[in-house]
Amino acid sequence: MSDAPAPSARTTLRRGADRAVYERTRVLEILDAGMIAHVGVQTPDGPLVLPMAYGRDDEKLYLHGAAANHLLGTGKGHEICATVTHIDGLVIARTPFHNSMNYRSVVIRGLATKIEDPDEKLRSLKLITDHVVANWDEGREVSEIDNRKTLVLEMALEEASAKVRSGDPVDEEDDMAGPWWAGVIPVETRFGEAYAAADFTGSNEMPPQYGAVAGKTPDER
Amino acid sequence: MSDAPAPSARTTLRRGADRAVYERTRVLEILDAGMIAHVGVQTPDGPLVLPMAYGRDDEKLYLHGAAANHLLGTGKGHEICATVTHIDGLVIARTPFHNSMNYRSVVIRGLATKIEDPDEKLRSLKLITDHVVANWDEGREVSEIDNRKTLVLEMALEEASAKVRSGDPVDEEDDMAGPWWAGVIPVETRFGEAYAAADFTGSNEMPPQYGAVAGKTPDER
Repeated sequence: MSDAPAPSARTTLRRGADRAVYERTRVLEILDAGMIAHVGVQTPDGPLVLPMAYGRDDEKLYLHGAAANHLLGTGKGHEICATVTHIDGLVIARTPFHNSMNYRSVVIRGLATKIEDPDEKLRSLKLITDHVVANWDEGREVSEIDNRKTLVLEMALEEASAKVRSGDPVDEEDDMAGPWWAGVIPVETRFGEAYAAADFTGSNEMPPQYGAVAGKTPDER
Repeated sequence: MSDAPAPSARTTLRRGADRAVYERTRVLEILDAGMIAHVGVQTPDGPLVLPMAYGRDDEKLYLHGAAANHLLGTGKGHEICATVTHIDGLVIARTPFHNSMNYRSVVIRGLATKIEDPDEKLRSLKLITDHVVANWDEGREVSEIDNRKTLVLEMALEEASAKVRSGDPVDEEDDMAGPWWAGVIPVETRFGEAYAAADFTGSNEMPPQYGAVAGKTPDER
């Protein structure tokens, strides 16, 4: 889909290179439509992949998730891989051998480091908090203590590659004249109607942006 | 959520252990509701996480995906981690520090090995193919050549752990009387109406199970 060069050797896709898109715009679009990244790290017990919330700016991905604290909170940085995938459809070919899925995914590899500077951490927390639906400015301000207790990782967006599959199944010549059905079952993720917590007693109205996403896909928000 | 012991030391969750559920039933339910696993493997270039299709039986998880061929197709087996996550909602607390997501996830760690036996491989391909919507028996039979070209990995389901978060935000005592809104924005994934490929000229009707999932969530299918 693109002739733009891969940003690094390990980011070059060895298979399906025709589906590889390196354009920055596409990478950012896929990240913006996502809600969690699956983050992989090597541990003494082997690889571990955990879901984490994220946000971004133009240069970096910011990751947050309690579960990863004990993995990534120490040392000068860890090589990680953060992958964001959207499933758009099941692709049913004339033979199961050519079944596929329509999807959009981004793979980012690089060194994740802990953000130490409190102001920088606060800025990254706002980016993560507002990534899916903006709510940073609607709640009680994050205190210095909250901020100290929170671990945020940053990694460069430099080694990011996108891979996209869309459209109909691709079958073999010999199968095209056969009787078998071929097509796509679409898959979509949508937000529902926001509801207040059972113990909510506050005076604030529900911020309008929470209701505004109802019925929308993460892409449309 | 459970007092059942973790199946191995590395599967015991060090954080959020109150949310950890080890029951096999729950693990299988979460796997059955999923469409892709994010599979992590250590490479000479660092960790890599890729989305893969999967299926299961009572003992094993079966993984298939062209992208992983070059990573996992060689040698006697690779330590991997396969993670399946469903996002059920955005949890908006009285302060962003306590924001969370409602989710269900399964983490499986273990040795992934290539299936060599052709019959066993065929059986596992049917499990993967029929995992989301049954279609193995609707298409052209998989040939011996197709089968030979396909790489399927298996891993034991033994070291699997589930983690589930549901319900309202959990805020601090001091914040409960504040004015701030707190609640949940639900997130749901649903199948759409199946459509035939533009180049479909076959005589077979669309198998009814493809239409039957329209409007359903992966859990309801």
